[in-house]
Amino acid sequence: MERPRHQGMAKNTYMRWRLPLICLLWEVAMIILFGVFVRFGPEADAHWEEEKHEMNITSDIENDFYFRYPSFQDVHVMIFVGFGFLMTFLKRYGFGAVGFNFLLAAFGIQWALLMQGWFHSFQNGKILIGVENLINADFCVGSVCVAFGAILGKTSPVQLLIMTLFQVTLFAVNEYILLNLLHVKDAGGSMTIHTFGAYFGLTVTRFLYRPNLEQSKDKEGSVYHSDLFAMIGTLYLWMYWPSFNSAISEHGDAQHRAAINTYCSLAACVLTTVAFSSMLQKKGKLDMVHIQNATLAGGVAVGTSAEMMLTPYGSLIVGFICGIVSTVGYVYLTPVLESKLHIQDTCGIHNLHGMPGLIGGIVGAITAAAATEDVYGKEGFIKAFDFTGSYKTRTPSIQGGFQAAGIVVSLLMAFAGGTLVGAILKLPIWGDAADENCFEDDIYWEVPEDEESDVYHMHNPDKAASP
Amino acid sequence: MERPRHQGMAKNTYMRWRLPLICLLWEVAMIILFGVFVRFGPEADAHWEEEKHEMNITSDIENDFYFRYPSFQDVHVMIFVGFGFLMTFLKRYGFGAVGFNFLLAAFGIQWALLMQGWFHSFQNGKILIGVENLINADFCVGSVCVAFGAILGKTSPVQLLIMTLFQVTLFAVNEYILLNLLHVKDAGGSMTIHTFGAYFGLTVTRFLYRPNLEQSKDKEGSVYHSDLFAMIGTLYLWMYWPSFNSAISEHGDAQHRAAINTYCSLAACVLTTVAFSSMLQKKGKLDMVHIQNATLAGGVAVGTSAEMMLTPYGSLIVGFICGIVSTVGYVYLTPVLESKLHIQDTCGIHNLHGMPGLIGGIVGAITAAAATEDVYGKEGFIKAFDFTGSYKTRTPSIQGGFQAAGIVVSLLMAFAGGTLVGAILKLPIWGDAADENCFEDDIYWEVPEDEESDVYHMHNPDKAASP
Amino acid sequence: MERPRHQGMAKNTYMRWRLPLICLLWEVAMIILFGVFVRFGPEADAHWEEEKHEMNITSDIENDFYFRYPSFQDVHVMIFVGFGFLMTFLKRYGFGAVGFNFLLAAFGIQWALLMQGWFHSFQNGKILIGVENLINADFCVGSVCVAFGAILGKTSPVQLLIMTLFQVTLFAVNEYILLNLLHVKDAGGSMTIHTFGAYFGLTVTRFLYRPNLEQSKDKEGSVYHSDLFAMIGTLYLWMYWPSFNSAISEHGDAQHRAAINTYCSLAACVLTTVAFSSMLQKKGKLDMVHIQNATLAGGVAVGTSAEMMLTPYGSLIVGFICGIVSTVGYVYLTPVLESKLHIQDTCGIHNLHGMPGLIGGIVGAITAAAATEDVYGKEGFIKAFDFTGSYKTRTPSIQGGFQAAGIVVSLLMAFAGGTLVGAILKLPIWGDAADENCFEDDIYWEVPEDEESDVYHMHNPDKAASP
Repeated sequence: MERPRHQGMAKNTYMRWRLPLICLLWEVAMIILFGVFVRFGPEADAHWEEEKHEMNITSDIENDFYFRYPSFQDVHVMIFVGFGFLMTFLKRYGFGAVGFNFLLAAFGIQWALLMQGWFHSFQNGKILIGVENLINADFCVGSVCVAFGAILGKTSPVQLLIMTLFQVTLFAVNEYILLNLLHVKDAGGSMTIHTFGAYFGLTVTRFLYRPNLEQSKDKEGSVYHSDLFAMIGTLYLWMYWPSFNSAISEHGDAQHRAAINTYCSLAACVLTTVAFSSMLQKKGKLDMVHIQNATLAGGVAVGTSAEMMLTPYGSLIVGFICGIVSTVGYVYLTPVLESKLHIQDTCGIHNLHGMPGLIGGIVGAITAAAATEDVYGKEGFIKAFDFTGSYKTRTPSIQGGFQAAGIVVSLLMAFAGGTLVGAILKLPIWGDAADENCFEDDIYWEVPEDEESDVYHMHNPDKAASP
Repeated sequence: MERPRHQGMAKNTYMRWRLPLICLLWEVAMIILFGVFVRFGPEADAHWEEEKHEMNITSDIENDFYFRYPSFQDVHVMIFVGFGFLMTFLKRYGFGAVGFNFLLAAFGIQWALLMQGWFHSFQNGKILIGVENLINADFCVGSVCVAFGAILGKTSPVQLLIMTLFQVTLFAVNEYILLNLLHVKDAGGSMTIHTFGAYFGLTVTRFLYRPNLEQSKDKEGSVYHSDLFAMIGTLYLWMYWPSFNSAISEHGDAQHRAAINTYCSLAACVLTTVAFSSMLQKKGKLDMVHIQNATLAGGVAVGTSAEMMLTPYGSLIVGFICGIVSTVGYVYLTPVLESKLHIQDTCGIHNLHGMPGLIGGIVGAITAAAATEDVYGKEGFIKAFDFTGSYKTRTPSIQGGFQAAGIVVSLLMAFAGGTLVGAILKLPIWGDAADENCFEDDIYWEVPEDEESDVYHMHNPDKAASP
Repeated sequence: MERPRHQGMAKNTYMRWRLPLICLLWEVAMIILFGVFVRFGPEADAHWEEEKHEMNITSDIENDFYFRYPSFQDVHVMIFVGFGFLMTFLKRYGFGAVGFNFLLAAFGIQWALLMQGWFHSFQNGKILIGVENLINADFCVGSVCVAFGAILGKTSPVQLLIMTLFQVTLFAVNEYILLNLLHVKDAGGSMTIHTFGAYFGLTVTRFLYRPNLEQSKDKEGSVYHSDLFAMIGTLYLWMYWPSFNSAISEHGDAQHRAAINTYCSLAACVLTTVAFSSMLQKKGKLDMVHIQNATLAGGVAVGTSAEMMLTPYGSLIVGFICGIVSTVGYVYLTPVLESKLHIQDTCGIHNLHGMPGLIGGIVGAITAAAATEDVYGKEGFIKAFDFTGSYKTRTPSIQGGFQAAGIVVSLLMAFAGGTLVGAILKLPIWGDAADENCFEDDIYWEVPEDEESDVYHMHNPDKAASP
C-alpha cells in the first residue's frame, strides 16, 4: 500500500549526505578535542585512592558522585524524556520531537563538556570532568531544547545540529560572563538556561518566519494519544524540577532548600494554571496545552532564587503568578506574536521559558538584594552568595544589581546570537521542509503505515484486499 | 468538522467560574497559611552552616537530604506518573485521569504540608519543613489518589478538590492518632494510606451511587493503547514501591531492609497474579486489569512490616497471598460490590488497596508481636519499635495489639470521613456529569478531534472534503 | 461485536492450566528455598546497630544502601520499563512485550537471588542479601530480557518461564567462572550479560526456527504509536545506562568513572547511528529501528571497561564504532542471519547486544592489558583490578588474556546453554502459537476491542447500530 505523495515538495529535503556528513564530522571533531583536552577529574580518577589520603578524606561517600549523581540522573531524564516527550503533542511529529531532541542533546552535551570545560574546569591544559560537569552539560543542552521548541516541526536535523553548535558556544560565553565576571548566582538557570534559550529560539524562529505556514495548520495540532504522550514529558519535567534547581547548588542546606522551594512553586503553579485555563475558555473547559506547559512555569521562575532563602511561601507566590502569566500568554500573547511580530513559536516557549525566565531573574535579583545576615546567619550569608575573595565587600543590594545586569546580558546575548544563527539557518542549503510539509515526520523519517487503516484492514479482511 | 453533541446533557457541568474560584481561593489560603506558619527546617536553612558546628557534624553528607532525596523523587514519580497513568486505562478519560490526579495532588501536597506540619513539625509557632515532610505530604496525597480511583470518571474537578481538602485533613488526624497516640509503626502506610484511602473512597463512591451508570458502560473500558499507557503507571508504581516503603524509615538498616522486603513481596505477587488471572478466565487468557493492578498488592501489603524483620521469605509469602486475593477480588468481588452493595469502584481499589491494606495491617501486627531481642539485637529491637521514653516498657505483644487497633481506627476514620465527604459531594452544585457522560473527557476538557477520523481523512483526501 | 476468528489455529495455545501451574509451582519453590537459605545481610539486619559499634562505623550513611540504592532503582527501571517498552514496537504485541517481560523478570530476580547467592553470598549455610544482591539479580535478569528479544512474539509465557529458569542458572555459573575462577572484571556485564544473553537467545531462536513465519509478517512491524512507546524504553535504557555500568563498581572513583565513560560512549553512539541510518537508506530517511536500538550499543560496549581508565575520548571512540557496527548490522546482517542461518531475531539483539557485547569484551581486555601504575596510581592500580591475595602477581597483560578468555567462555556457555534450552522449548507441549499467529497478543491476552473501530462507531452513531 503506497502512501499518497505530498504535492509540491519543492524543497530538497534529501538528507542522505548532508546529515551523515555533519554527524560524522562533528563526532570526529569531538573525539579529537576530547583526546587533546578531556581527562577525569580527581574524584573520578583512579588516583583518588591516593588523593583521599592526602586530603584526609576518610570515606568514599565524600566523593561528589554521591552528592550529585541522583540529581544528575533526574536532570538527564528531564532533558531526554522531559523535553523529548513534551514536544510529541503534535499529531504527526512524534518521531521528530523525540528523535531530533535525542540527536541534538547527544551532540550538545559533548560540545558543552568542552566549552564549559575550557571556561570552568581547565587546569594545566586539560579539562578535568566529574559528575558536576555532566550536570552542567545537560543544563547547557537544556537551553537548546528550549529553543528547539520554538522551531519544532519547521527545521531539518542539519539545521538543528548547526544551531546546537552555536547555541552551546554562546551559552558557555554568556554563562561565563554571568557566573564569573558578574559573579551572579543562577543555579537553576532562570537566566542562563531559560531566558537565554527562549529569546535565542524566538529570534531564530523570527528569522525563519514562514508566511505560508497555514498550509500546514491541519498538522499543527494534537490528537488524543499525542496529548497523553506529551503529558509524560510534562510530568517528568514537573516532578524532577526540584532536582534540576538543586543539582549544582552547594552541598548541604543549599541543595535541600532549592528542592523545597521548587516543589512549592510548582505545586502552586498547577492550581493557577487550571484556574486560568478554565476561566479563559468560554465553555470553561481545560486546555491540555496549558496543563502541559504552564504548570511548569513555576519551576523556571525559581531557577535563580531556589537556593536562596526565598522561603516556601515566597515560592508559592512566584508559582501562583507564573501559572497565570504563562496561561494568559498562551491564550492572548502567542497569537499576537505570530500575527504582529511574525514570531511563530510552535511550543509557546515564550510563555513557558521566556516570561517565567525573566520573572525568575527578577525574583532572584530581589531575593539577593533582600538578603540579610539575620536571615542567612553569618556564615550562611557568605556561603550562599560566595562573598569571599574579591567579592568580600559586596553587599546584597549590589549583588541584586549584578543579578539584574545578568538578565540584560542574557537577553542581549540571546538576541545577538539568535540573529547570527537565524541568518545562517536561513541559507537555502540545509534541507528544511516546504511550508506545506511542516510538522510532518514523513519528510525525514521512515514512517510505518498508518495504524488506523492498517489495523482496520487487518480486522476487515474483505477491505484489505483493495488497498 | 463538528463533534456530535451528547444527548441529554441534563446536568450543568459548566466549570468556568466554579473551578477557577475554588482553585484560586484555596491557593490564596495556602499562601497565607504558609506565610504565617511554614519555614525551612534546620537542615534546609542557611543557618545549617552554624548548626553543623554546634552539633559537631563534620560532613554535609549527614544532611537528611542525602539519606532521603532519592527515595523522595521515586515517591514523587509514583504519585504523579504512577497513579496518574495507572488510571489512563479508560479509553476516553486519559486527560481526566492524568490531569485531575495532577491537580488534586498538587493542591493536596500543600495542604498536607500544613496539616501534617501542625501535628508533627510544629515548633515555636512555626512548621519547620525538610525533605521528610515532602515525602510525608506525597504519602498523604497518595491516599487521596487511592480514593480517586474509586470515583474515577464520575466526579467533577471541583468535587475532587473538595474531597482532597477533607481527606488530607482526616488523613493527618488519623495518622496522628496512629503514630503518636497509639505509637504504631506504619512506615509504608498499609493502614494510614491504603486502608484509610481505600475505604474512604469506597464510602464516598457508595454515596455517589449512580443506578443508571450502565448508560456509560461503553466508555468504561480500555482500548489497546490506553492499556499500554496504564502499564507505564503500573510499572513505575511497582519498581519504585521499595522506595515508598523505605522512604521514611530510620536511617541505615531499616531503610535497607524495607527496600529488600518490598522488592521480594512484589516479585512474588506478579507470579500469583498471572497464575490466577489465567486460571479464572475460561479461555485461560491473561487480563490486563489484573496485571495492571493486582501485581501491586504485594507492595501495599508489606507497607507496615517492610521495615521490620519480616525476612525475605516472609515477604514472598505475603506477596504470594496478595496476588491471589487481589485477582480473585477483581473477578468475583467487584461485580458483587456493585450489584449488592451499590459500590461502583472504577479502578477496583478495594482489590488493590483495600484488602491488601488490611492484610498489611495484620501482617504488621503479627510481625511486631513476634519480635524478639534475639532477632533484632538488643539495640536494634529498641530502635525498630522506638521503645524509648514512655514506651520503654511496651512488649512486642502489646505493640501487636496496638498495631491491630490502628487498623480498626483507620477503618472507622475512613467510614466516618467517607460518609461526611460523600454527603457533601452529593449536593447537586458541584457540576458532576450525567450518568450517560461519565468516563468521558469531553465534559471537562478541550478534546482534539479524533485521531482516527483525522488521520484517516488526511490520507484520504477525497473523503476529507465531506466531513 | 465479535472479533474475526483466526483461521487455522492448529496449535493448542490454551494456557489455563499450564501457565498457572508453572507460576504457582515455581513461586512455592522460591518460598521454600528462600525460607531455607535467604536472610538479611549485615547492613540490612536489625543487628546493624550493634555491628556499627563493633566496626567503628560512625554514620548510617556508610551503609551500602546509600552508595548503591539510587543506581539500583535506575537499573530496576531499565529492566522493567526499559526492556519492556523497547519491545512494544510491534503493532499488536505490546501486552506481550511489557507483560511477559514483567513476568519473566519478576520470577528471574528471585531465582537469581538464590543462584548468585549460593555462589557469592553464602555464609554458614545462609545467603545474606543486601542492595548489591538486588542489583546483581536485576543484572542477571537483564540477560534473559536480552534473549527474550530474539524470540519476541514467537513463544508462550510457559516457554519464557522455562527459559528464565535455565538461563538464570547458566548465567550464575558463567558469572562464577568469569569473576571467581578467571578473576575477570566485568562490572557492566559486556560479557556476562550482553554477550552471554545475546548468543544464548540467538541459539534458542535458531532451534525454534519457523520456516513459515512470513505468514505473520504483516504483524511483524510497528505503527506510529507503537514506535513512540518503544522510544520510552530506548530513552530509559539510554539515560540510565551510566547507572547500570557503575552500579556494582567499587565505591568512590570507580563508580564515578564508570558513569562518565558510559555517558560519553552513549552520546557518541547516537551521532553515528543517525549518520548511518540516513546513509544506508536510499531516500536518506531515518529508521526508528536504528534510533531505538543502535543508539544503545555504546552502553553495551563499555560494560567491561567503563570502570577502568578508559578515558572520555576512549569512550567516544568505542561509542562511535558501535553506532556504526550496530546500524550496519540491522541493515545488512539481520536479513542474512534469517535467510542463510535461519536465525529469526525479532528485535535484532545480535546488533544491539551480540556484536557490541563482543566489542565490549575486547575493549575491556585491551584496556586491562594497557593498564599501568602510572595511569592508575599505585593503590588505584591494585584496587581497580583487585590484584590482591592470590592475584597479587598478576600483570596487566595476563589480566588482558584472562579477560579475553572470559569472552570465549561466555560464548561457549551461551551456545551450549542455548542448545539445551532450545531443544527443551522445541517440545510441542508448551503452547506456542502457530506461525500465522505470531506477534499477536490475542493468543494469550484478553484484548479490548479495537479502539479504531470502536471510537469510530462511538462518534458515528448510525454505524454503531450495525456492528
